[in-house]
Amino acid sequence: MKKIINIIIASLFLFVPLLIAQRPRMQAIESPQVHADRTVTFNFKAPQANQVELSTQFIKGPQALTKDSTGLWTITLGPVEPDIYPYNFIVDGISVADPNNVNIFPNERFKSSLVEIPADKPAIYSLQNVPHGQMTYCYYFSKSMQVTRPLIVYTPPGYNKNNQKYPVFYLISGTTDTEETWFKVGRANVILDNLIAQNKAVPMLIVMPYGNTFTGTPDPSSLQAADMYKIFNDDLVGSIIPYVEENFRAIPKRESRAIAGFSRGGGQSLFAGFTNIDKFAWICSYSAYLSPEVFEKYFSNIYSDPQATNNRLKLLWLGVGNEDFLYKQAITFNELLKEKHIEQQNLITSGGHTWMNARLYLTETLQLFFK
Amino acid sequence: MKKIINIIIASLFLFVPLLIAQRPRMQAIESPQVHADRTVTFNFKAPQANQVELSTQFIKGPQALTKDSTGLWTITLGPVEPDIYPYNFIVDGISVADPNNVNIFPNERFKSSLVEIPADKPAIYSLQNVPHGQMTYCYYFSKSMQVTRPLIVYTPPGYNKNNQKYPVFYLISGTTDTEETWFKVGRANVILDNLIAQNKAVPMLIVMPYGNTFTGTPDPSSLQAADMYKIFNDDLVGSIIPYVEENFRAIPKRESRAIAGFSRGGGQSLFAGFTNIDKFAWICSYSAYLSPEVFEKYFSNIYSDPQATNNRLKLLWLGVGNEDFLYKQAITFNELLKEKHIEQQNLITSGGHTWMNARLYLTETLQLFFK
Repeated sequence: MKKIINIIIASLFLFVPLLIAQRPRMQAIESPQVHADRTVTFNFKAPQANQVELSTQFIKGPQALTKDSTGLWTITLGPVEPDIYPYNFIVDGISVADPNNVNIFPNERFKSSLVEIPADKPAIYSLQNVPHGQMTYCYYFSKSMQVTRPLIVYTPPGYNKNNQKYPVFYLISGTTDTEETWFKVGRANVILDNLIAQNKAVPMLIVMPYGNTFTGTPDPSSLQAADMYKIFNDDLVGSIIPYVEENFRAIPKRESRAIAGFSRGGGQSLFAGFTNIDKFAWICSYSAYLSPEVFEKYFSNIYSDPQATNNRLKLLWLGVGNEDFLYKQAITFNELLKEKHIEQQNLITSGGHTWMNARLYLTETLQLFFK
Repeated sequence: MKKIINIIIASLFLFVPLLIAQRPRMQAIESPQVHADRTVTFNFKAPQANQVELSTQFIKGPQALTKDSTGLWTITLGPVEPDIYPYNFIVDGISVADPNNVNIFPNERFKSSLVEIPADKPAIYSLQNVPHGQMTYCYYFSKSMQVTRPLIVYTPPGYNKNNQKYPVFYLISGTTDTEETWFKVGRANVILDNLIAQNKAVPMLIVMPYGNTFTGTPDPSSLQAADMYKIFNDDLVGSIIPYVEENFRAIPKRESRAIAGFSRGGGQSLFAGFTNIDKFAWICSYSAYLSPEVFEKYFSNIYSDPQATNNRLKLLWLGVGNEDFLYKQAITFNELLKEKHIEQQNLITSGGHTWMNARLYLTETLQLFFK
């Protein structure tokens, strides 16, 4: 109810596709502005700044903005390949989110904003006029950590109107991410809504825990990584799965449980999946790996009888980008599994350790689960 | 899974009360640091900056931080009255959220962070070890706006385990806020969880719409404000209430529907409540008002037969702070209602147009509804 003078609303409905939940552009400064030719303009008001740059994942390195006489810094880039990209401004060396963009990347350490470059045909991660599931924020008590922790659960369209039980997919995000990152950045709900509407995925629950175990982030190639994975595993098996199966209509069987994660979450998923092969039949890693030392120390149950493992696992899926800083380690892990005669599916994409790839791997694997 | 060197975890569990969901302090820079004596230290790394200030609602005006030889700017303030406060840094004139604080104020226009100063006894807005409800993010199709819009619905503890129907409280946030603001800043779920556990409020659903109608924010003292209120009202009555009553176990009766909002949301609530007195029996305004012109033009149904209105309304409640920039207008509205013989309950608090007051008004009114 603040009085806001001179609101620029002339361009209010430009580039706002109907049927798509879009935030209005009410602010005097509109940023980002995505144009019909897929170029995008970023604006930032900073009359006192000496230098403003843009950092984003669709172009390498910081890009200098130019300042007009009113102190508005601006840059237009592209055309840009359709996707959802994180970006931030760097103002005299300080990284800041875009104050005029409501779409924030949930993260413990940095504040980035998100820009979606729409495709001609709506992308699988774009909100469309299909039945929508719901994202439910819960609290559960972690017995192993002795603390109340947050959890988000996706329920598919129709969940509130039937008594059906559903398979459950446990989906973990990366280092410094929160339980919200697969929702707000990964768009897990939108992707699954669309895949269900297209008959490409089966209705399921998706459980998004907070993967940070309070115990630091050891180098994934170290044996200490396994200690952190174990702490997460204790929380998952001892508290998260029981909470979900008590509070949601979940099918409590191993053939109806999948687990995957991005980055640190991928390591956590591989570790928890292999530790609990009696509980998970579908295991994926997005842009992650287990080191040979960790695998050989902890998972003789997996490699000592590969035939038994292959019979039990409905899917072991590993995806990584060929520019990922973990690419070499991920490929080494794929080769180790092969050497141990463990069946796997692999997807090697272009690109790096990005949420663009994470969404892609999610989209691929959602179509495989529980079939 | 990024390699993070030299993570400082020494102070990891300081000030992390057990049983309370708390984000760990994993970052090399810890900010804010809330001390046992209720002072609070803010830290911000900016070696190149010439000036860093802190802006927060517990102290008037920007406070200058001082820089050490490593480029870390710091300030300690307080002791501070227990509450949850928005704050941001001002770096050479640019307002930025705290990069090391995951708790962000959801807003379309600014990026602020949140700091909670704990009380000796856990405050009503502090997460406690009581049964928790859930916050569900939904999409509904707005028939009047022809667009898919977001909505958050609180369901009380036990909702998933019974077949009970519940009364519904529609709760709207302010200008530039989003549907998340009553959740992330207002802590509506935590407050109601605690009030239910203390037998001070009845279990109910809380529906948090996105109050921005795409049509600008007219001065609430202008007749144009009514046009905006009408657009919101069309969405509420035509799409939101039907969506909620179709998808949640809501009691579809006027005695079981309440409406309230903060700031612009308060104006929207008064307008929608008075327009639909056949649908709402409990109407509140937090830090808001209707202008005499709007009230007299649109609401003869309310004031022409005050006895009938008083009989129909279970509650008309208006709260405002005596330092609110809308205080005078709010008091004028209270007096107008009195002059028209409309019964009301008023709460005049200290403080201004703040979310600290909004939470307080919410806490007061939740204890009155549906009794």
